[in-house]
Amino acid sequence: MTAVRDLSDRLHEVVGPAGLVTDAADMGGYLTDWRHAYGGSAAAVVRPGSTAEVAAVVGLCREAGVAVVPQGGNTGLCGGSMPDSSGRQVVLSLTRMTRIHDIDPVNQTITAEAGVVLQSVQEAAAAAGRLFPLSLGAEGSCTIGGNLATNAGGTGVLRYGTMRDLTLGLEVVLPDGRIWNGLRGLRKDNTGYDLKQLFIGAEGTLGVITAAVLKLFPAVRSRATAWVALPAPQAAVDLIGIFQELCGDRLTGFEIMSRQSVDVVLRHRAGARDLFAAVHPWYALVELSDTLPDAGLDGLLERGLGEAFDRGVAADAVVASSPAQVAGLWALREGISEAQNYEGPSLKHDVTVPVSSIPAFVERTDGALQAALPGIRLVTYGHIGDGNLHYNLSKPPGDDDDAFRARADELARIVYDSTSSFSGSISAEHGLGQSKREIIADYKDGCELQLMREIKQLFDPAGLMNPGKVVPDA
Amino acid sequence: MTAVRDLSDRLHEVVGPAGLVTDAADMGGYLTDWRHAYGGSAAAVVRPGSTAEVAAVVGLCREAGVAVVPQGGNTGLCGGSMPDSSGRQVVLSLTRMTRIHDIDPVNQTITAEAGVVLQSVQEAAAAAGRLFPLSLGAEGSCTIGGNLATNAGGTGVLRYGTMRDLTLGLEVVLPDGRIWNGLRGLRKDNTGYDLKQLFIGAEGTLGVITAAVLKLFPAVRSRATAWVALPAPQAAVDLIGIFQELCGDRLTGFEIMSRQSVDVVLRHRAGARDLFAAVHPWYALVELSDTLPDAGLDGLLERGLGEAFDRGVAADAVVASSPAQVAGLWALREGISEAQNYEGPSLKHDVTVPVSSIPAFVERTDGALQAALPGIRLVTYGHIGDGNLHYNLSKPPGDDDDAFRARADELARIVYDSTSSFSGSISAEHGLGQSKREIIADYKDGCELQLMREIKQLFDPAGLMNPGKVVPDA
Repeated sequence: MTAVRDLSDRLHEVVGPAGLVTDAADMGGYLTDWRHAYGGSAAAVVRPGSTAEVAAVVGLCREAGVAVVPQGGNTGLCGGSMPDSSGRQVVLSLTRMTRIHDIDPVNQTITAEAGVVLQSVQEAAAAAGRLFPLSLGAEGSCTIGGNLATNAGGTGVLRYGTMRDLTLGLEVVLPDGRIWNGLRGLRKDNTGYDLKQLFIGAEGTLGVITAAVLKLFPAVRSRATAWVALPAPQAAVDLIGIFQELCGDRLTGFEIMSRQSVDVVLRHRAGARDLFAAVHPWYALVELSDTLPDAGLDGLLERGLGEAFDRGVAADAVVASSPAQVAGLWALREGISEAQNYEGPSLKHDVTVPVSSIPAFVERTDGALQAALPGIRLVTYGHIGDGNLHYNLSKPPGDDDDAFRARADELARIVYDSTSSFSGSISAEHGLGQSKREIIADYKDGCELQLMREIKQLFDPAGLMNPGKVVPDA
Repeated sequence: MTAVRDLSDRLHEVVGPAGLVTDAADMGGYLTDWRHAYGGSAAAVVRPGSTAEVAAVVGLCREAGVAVVPQGGNTGLCGGSMPDSSGRQVVLSLTRMTRIHDIDPVNQTITAEAGVVLQSVQEAAAAAGRLFPLSLGAEGSCTIGGNLATNAGGTGVLRYGTMRDLTLGLEVVLPDGRIWNGLRGLRKDNTGYDLKQLFIGAEGTLGVITAAVLKLFPAVRSRATAWVALPAPQAAVDLIGIFQELCGDRLTGFEIMSRQSVDVVLRHRAGARDLFAAVHPWYALVELSDTLPDAGLDGLLERGLGEAFDRGVAADAVVASSPAQVAGLWALREGISEAQNYEGPSLKHDVTVPVSSIPAFVERTDGALQAALPGIRLVTYGHIGDGNLHYNLSKPPGDDDDAFRARADELARIVYDSTSSFSGSISAEHGLGQSKREIIADYKDGCELQLMREIKQLFDPAGLMNPGKVVPDA
């Protein structure tokens, strides 16, 4: 106890009263994630106000032999920013570091601290006549630091890439308390190993990201959006091909939803309504966009859909004719995750396979899941243009919640084994955190696992930087 | 001698007679680079035909304590693929590994061995109705492995990024002879540290890249190209802004040339002619492209140029009206490097600064160079849309070649100090190789250098993988 209290006093000296939370009630929000799926306890929550303070905090914890758990907006899905249950770890929240240092519309870059909320970066870019294209459900509360730590994806990856692709420079506090200033705003820089790549997607296990230089793009000035009914996943893949061939970079969004995904939204979201008289097994949301206000996107959309009808790829389609209709289509897609909660436990899986393997992958996986648990509902949806499906499962109607939950590991194995058989990834955009840390060892080759462990050991020999995350035990 | 001869016999067992070159005359082409700027000698040149053979060769060399120097098309500019002069190193040429394993137009990926020539990948993509956008002067002889090892750039970076951005998966033979198979064709994969990023741009110092999965794009079906006279570098930056604002992703090429760059081409290239009656201090080559055949690019080009004239950004302009004219404009740009050789020694510097800093950077650098050597000719050109200038220097007319060469280090310092003062990079796209390995220590922070050395030590504790390249001595 003396050591912890002593550390607490020293942390207080560094971050002041506004930066240190030790009262149990006040710590609560930092000790469970937004879904309340993961929880822990902590000796303290520290909220430094600057990079120098982060470095001092990390240094003090290291001296005291206390583990540090970096945390952003706490919207992760794999428990990567949750402390363990020992009550000895320190949560390092970046949420007071909310400065945007610089926005350069000519260089098309923005420099922001780790605690800036994603939506604030989007808005700052828009105010400068630019686009920051990362877009995801949690954008109103997730932070840039968390987006970097998990290499966030979302709906804009098809055209703009993941957070890794959007990052030019980083500032990082290393596990030994040193600050690496790599805040460069350069589009070409070949002067040695590209260190920033190690920290992006490392979920805070190699250091604490404190700031970043991010890419901006020209503002988008026109959009066209359609909701398309499809007979099968193969049709979705064909439809992507039609629009990529026709529109190239203008195809900026392509989402897919199984009928059962749409069903849960229709059932639970006020105002949601089916767009077609008939029921279709799959749907796609297609979005074209352009920097030109007069880009003729409606005509291109009609042309692409016309070809899709001619080839039997599309069964039906609706083109949005107002911003309200566009919002309505996206709400059907984005309402799935929340609506699914009303159907009992949701077993979530976030996987990628090559786009060309999607049809065979879905057929094999659906078949195996139905064989294991007849009547299971396949709430499958996602960013199919990136090969990324959220393969979420709801229990058969009427089944018991706990009985379904008890089969979580078995059903996950079915999804992951199938993913692996198509050379896919068992975590597309959610990371490993604590939830997939052990199971990844069954799906990654031994050489790669060993290199990961060696890099972790190199950067964090004391094992105090977000321990128990990402890297499986040997 | 016994050890070397013994190694040679064992290498012969692995790669057979077609894969082993030990005759001095036959080794010649592997022991000097294409410009004859760097040269060395070697115990042997080994040309394995498969990844397993590469692994065996690396393993044998490691056992014998012999250094390995990986080599692709030997078109590098910094001596990164040249052995030293000891005659004890083994050159590992990847040029027999020329298989394209797979091309998947739906997933938009191509899987190719390291020795495939860049142009062959471009052609294979085109045959499948796709674009592989990496494009650079040496594309007819440089290899994919070399492009990866140096994170190659070129003229397509503005829209498509560098080789790093174009890479989804890698296969690498590690310094201890293990094979890491990371040949994944996934656009999202967050399952731990992104190891491939360490090998891209590492110039063979952490392992030998043997194959890669690369991204493809929809084929380009229309282009519009203009040559624009500009009063100053600020005008070039303004012109980029006009076209990015107007055309977004359609702006796929933007090159800048100083008058003295164009002068050397006009003087030495048969058929080259000035496009305007007046002499202008700077020129830009602007290229728009689109996947649509009927994209209205000519109209957009006229619109952008009209705005540029109205704002005083452009002094004059020519729009190419035939493929031959397009080729003529690119020849003016691409002829610079060769033409400069006729003017005596060319002191080459490949730097990046933020695009917004280009005008001030050029003014300060030109001023300092002119002060140091009045009459020096500033053959400055490059990919200004990426902030990347090739800051090449020719001697004042009439000066002595050797006297000019003798000042190379002093003049390089002027360029690099200026670059550094604008938070730039002293190697944009050419890498460090041997030529910039020591000087980088003066421009990179100590923390970053130390991390680079630690990573090198982790992967290659024996120091046998391309020693003397990239990582400066402590």
